[in-house]
Amino acid sequence: MNKPLPASEFETPKVTTGPLPSSRKAYVSPEGAPDLRVPLREIVLSPEAGEAPLPVYDTSGVYTDNDVAIDVEAGLKRVRVDWVRERGSIEEYDGRAIQPVDNGNVSGKHLARAFPNTPKPMRGVGDAPVTQYEFAKAGIITKEMIYIAARENLGRKAMLERAQDALKDGESFGASVPPFITPEFVREEVARGRAIIPSNINHAELEPMIIGRNFLVKINANIGNSAVTSSVEEEIEKMVWAIRWGADTVMDLSTGRNIHNTREWILRNSPVPIGTVPIYQALEKVDGDPVKLDWECYKDTLIEQCEQGVDYFTIHAGVRLAYVPLTANRVTGIVSRGGSIMAKWCLSRHKESFLYERFDEICDLMRKYDVSFSLGDGLRPGSIADANDRAQFAELETLGELTQIAWKKGCQVMIEGPGHVPMHKIKINMDKQLKECGEAPFYTLGPLTTDIAPGYDHITSGIGAAMIGWFGCAMLCYVTPKEHLGLPDRDDVKQGVITYKIAAHAADLAKGHPAAQLRDDALSRARFDFRWMDQFHLSLDPDTAIRYHDETLPKEAHKVAHFCSMCGPKFCSMKITQDVRDYAATLNDPNAVGMTQKGVIEDGMAQMSQKFRDLGEQVYIDAEKVKASNKALS
Amino acid sequence: MNKPLPASEFETPKVTTGPLPSSRKAYVSPEGAPDLRVPLREIVLSPEAGEAPLPVYDTSGVYTDNDVAIDVEAGLKRVRVDWVRERGSIEEYDGRAIQPVDNGNVSGKHLARAFPNTPKPMRGVGDAPVTQYEFAKAGIITKEMIYIAARENLGRKAMLERAQDALKDGESFGASVPPFITPEFVREEVARGRAIIPSNINHAELEPMIIGRNFLVKINANIGNSAVTSSVEEEIEKMVWAIRWGADTVMDLSTGRNIHNTREWILRNSPVPIGTVPIYQALEKVDGDPVKLDWECYKDTLIEQCEQGVDYFTIHAGVRLAYVPLTANRVTGIVSRGGSIMAKWCLSRHKESFLYERFDEICDLMRKYDVSFSLGDGLRPGSIADANDRAQFAELETLGELTQIAWKKGCQVMIEGPGHVPMHKIKINMDKQLKECGEAPFYTLGPLTTDIAPGYDHITSGIGAAMIGWFGCAMLCYVTPKEHLGLPDRDDVKQGVITYKIAAHAADLAKGHPAAQLRDDALSRARFDFRWMDQFHLSLDPDTAIRYHDETLPKEAHKVAHFCSMCGPKFCSMKITQDVRDYAATLNDPNAVGMTQKGVIEDGMAQMSQKFRDLGEQVYIDAEKVKASNKALS
Repeated sequence: MNKPLPASEFETPKVTTGPLPSSRKAYVSPEGAPDLRVPLREIVLSPEAGEAPLPVYDTSGVYTDNDVAIDVEAGLKRVRVDWVRERGSIEEYDGRAIQPVDNGNVSGKHLARAFPNTPKPMRGVGDAPVTQYEFAKAGIITKEMIYIAARENLGRKAMLERAQDALKDGESFGASVPPFITPEFVREEVARGRAIIPSNINHAELEPMIIGRNFLVKINANIGNSAVTSSVEEEIEKMVWAIRWGADTVMDLSTGRNIHNTREWILRNSPVPIGTVPIYQALEKVDGDPVKLDWECYKDTLIEQCEQGVDYFTIHAGVRLAYVPLTANRVTGIVSRGGSIMAKWCLSRHKESFLYERFDEICDLMRKYDVSFSLGDGLRPGSIADANDRAQFAELETLGELTQIAWKKGCQVMIEGPGHVPMHKIKINMDKQLKECGEAPFYTLGPLTTDIAPGYDHITSGIGAAMIGWFGCAMLCYVTPKEHLGLPDRDDVKQGVITYKIAAHAADLAKGHPAAQLRDDALSRARFDFRWMDQFHLSLDPDTAIRYHDETLPKEAHKVAHFCSMCGPKFCSMKITQDVRDYAATLNDPNAVGMTQKGVIEDGMAQMSQKFRDLGEQVYIDAEKVKASNKALS
Repeated sequence: MNKPLPASEFETPKVTTGPLPSSRKAYVSPEGAPDLRVPLREIVLSPEAGEAPLPVYDTSGVYTDNDVAIDVEAGLKRVRVDWVRERGSIEEYDGRAIQPVDNGNVSGKHLARAFPNTPKPMRGVGDAPVTQYEFAKAGIITKEMIYIAARENLGRKAMLERAQDALKDGESFGASVPPFITPEFVREEVARGRAIIPSNINHAELEPMIIGRNFLVKINANIGNSAVTSSVEEEIEKMVWAIRWGADTVMDLSTGRNIHNTREWILRNSPVPIGTVPIYQALEKVDGDPVKLDWECYKDTLIEQCEQGVDYFTIHAGVRLAYVPLTANRVTGIVSRGGSIMAKWCLSRHKESFLYERFDEICDLMRKYDVSFSLGDGLRPGSIADANDRAQFAELETLGELTQIAWKKGCQVMIEGPGHVPMHKIKINMDKQLKECGEAPFYTLGPLTTDIAPGYDHITSGIGAAMIGWFGCAMLCYVTPKEHLGLPDRDDVKQGVITYKIAAHAADLAKGHPAAQLRDDALSRARFDFRWMDQFHLSLDPDTAIRYHDETLPKEAHKVAHFCSMCGPKFCSMKITQDVRDYAATLNDPNAVGMTQKGVIEDGMAQMSQKFRDLGEQVYIDAEKVKASNKALS
């Protein structure tokens, strides 16, 4: 066997750092928890705005903190080690030894360097609570819950002060979004199984977040190498890049070689929860042949990944033998990789799925590390024709049954959803999931609302994602423009993330989520005031907004211009509107002729017309002039 | 004054021609109308597909017909001249002379060359029917109606043969989409005012189309130069480019110079209806000062454009004086250009809008040329904060009142809609429009479902557009990525059009439109069969799909490979599913052990497992082998 290359031969992975334009990192410490530092991003506006910086939810970790030196080889600070230890009933132990098969038996220059500083794993011992679900059920508020309450509340106080009835303006379809998130509310939601805090005790680098329909809608970005292309370095940068633009969790869907080592680098450098599909790696261990899979190999893979700190596992335990033939007449059969692996396994052995049969054991194992379930939808529809069919719903019913088992075992659970679904079938899907799965959080891929636009499936699915987020879905798994066509590159990842931030935010707005509209309002005020730079800085992607503006009007002067390129200097609706507003403001003077009523009298009309002319038909009317004019009229 | 440049100094505008990859132009002649040639596009699939070419709706005109030589200087064939003449009550006359002010008083090299071959205008005389609405009311089926019935029916026969209850799988919210469109149905819908056929009698180059919620959802693309940038050549190519990708109508929103000449080139070369906002040009004629606008100038502009052949006019006659102050406390005031011009006019004169007061006269004029109304929403919300407010709805109620007047005058009418609207307010909007405006077709800009993503407003609005299309909107006005930032270039136009084709198609699917799903199914079959080229050719944008695929797997061989880059050769869900399907097929043999029921007995399981192994665990099982194996088992 070839010897691995020495460390000096590897390039240190380069990642994108530094804040977004005119943004700065800030931290808040929740009341009574001065040791917690909850991150947020403040968007600083121009002095003309006369507005305080706008706080926004921040997933980007310390990569956007100028005060933190990034060292990918050292990994992020392991802040949560102490939190976990304090809670007790945990042991540190020598983990499973890494085996060549964990990295696809590659060697020499093909073997990616191991992360230089892998920590020892921890696991729960005995029956004392380990998972967030168990703590919540026991009435205990964890530090993660306190942290999350502060994180979710961003700006909500300002909104509440502005409008007590903010929540009324929305349709939440039975969700129970409170005006203000308390740690106790977080605990209650976790205890009810309506929300999860994916947080493996071994992923101590994590900045805790929550997934549940009474919280902000979250998004996931998929990364991962494949047998065909891409490297460790690229994958780490994709993770950092994805969270820079707002990914709340990242799934590492690597197949092929170096799976173990790639994942270790990602976990040690990730402030967001990392999800995986363990059967992908298990399959690599048996040379890609589903028929050779067995419980021992799968269990070994689960332990390997539990110890590394993966926060949630997609497990396709609902693909039961009897459901497989239900897909035979579909237009696109089984399109989930995990689902098709299990289908092939079931058929070849003509046996019930070992994931289904061993589900109790899987729960016991995942509980010890607090790995959350993401119950996979292996039979999700891969085309409009197959949406909401019997195969899909049979599996969903089984996922509901498994949810109850997982909860009894103390585990956190969310449920994965489709796929390809036309708009009129999306709500049916959402409602059925809530009913079958006891309101466990729904986590959907899209759904894509049509099949006819490969190259644009971020858009076909962004439509479905916004809708299902509104209807109650807790997390939206992004789709990139390369879906169905190839592996996403950096630009595709960004397109996917931004599209899904739009979908999630549109959903928050429609649900009437308190404070969601603060950013829309701030940006719209900037737009109306021609504060171009503020408009760009408040946008989801300031770099692109600036670039697009500069393509038409490249000069610096235009960024402070009181017109936009759509209309030009002479002819701008925003400018005219400002005239209207200034003029209407003069009407508040009790001496002026009222205009806010219908049926203003002709006399008054003529007077007001004269007055407008007297004032020089000007924008930004001098207040003193107006008073003088009003006096003359009265 | 400078002399205009001689024709030889102008470059002939270059436009994009030729069919899309693997597509060909076809024409059908409706029964009983052998002189009509209704265009469609046939997507030719690979021989392996064993499927007939898929017919799709085609907006691209003869630019994609290899058998037609394109001569932009001559313009398209004026096929409809005879149709209009045959109907009678029409006179040809010497039109209004073109004046320097029509082109912004530019001269010399700044003046765009006039189209070399401008036809004489026609107009209706007397009270005999001129408009499609009048013919429909009189019980007369026009050639346009016959043409449209054939055009809308594309592929619908195939769908009907496949599934008689196709329509049942959808939610149309009270629309009345029939299984098959007849000319009589077209007539009825036009007569009820529920659909319009924008078709100025002077736009003889038109390939007629219909806008109404019981027909396919349509999309509009905006083009037009502005005071700041762009040329005639660019605008013609933008029109050709927009219809190549599927724009059903095009609005020329030019401001600045050369408006008349630019429009003439566009009209003479456009097979789709052209809309304008006449007040833009009227404003140019009074040096951009709204205060100087008057009825004479506006009327003169209407006549100018009626004679040129503009098919629909956006007229902001609902911006009444009394509504203007309702916008004063908005976050973004009045954002419609037309709306703000009229608001300024009303305020400066303190008079009711001349568009509202002269509405009767406007109807009489437009009727003579059959120019359709697109009643503008001058007070549409420009931000989430302003959605569905009193100003917006007050104007909508007035548009309902004006719709009744226009119908009495014999005119066709559609209604423009917002704008910026969060998801939960979209249906309220749609329902109110249907109610207030007697089901006249709704034509909306987006709506944008959030304000926070400049640079991505094709997506923020694509979400809203898909939803409102589903709820009953008849035409969706596209938004490009440059919205709020700059003028769209060619790429932006394409992004906008494709995004809106997605939205319109998603809406058709959700409404349960017969035949809409044929294309999804064909593409999904191609995807499942690894017919890569068929998948690309069936997509809305084959060029982009091919390019994205090639970025990951550039080799030609990969386009026929039975795997995709997401999974790699060893590990592909589609491939595994094919195994499942082939295997399940063997179960139809009455001698085989049944698997489609839950609770298969253990014995059977073991047998089937053995059988699968006997068959070599192979894909594409030999049918003879299976029979032999079944015999052995029984």
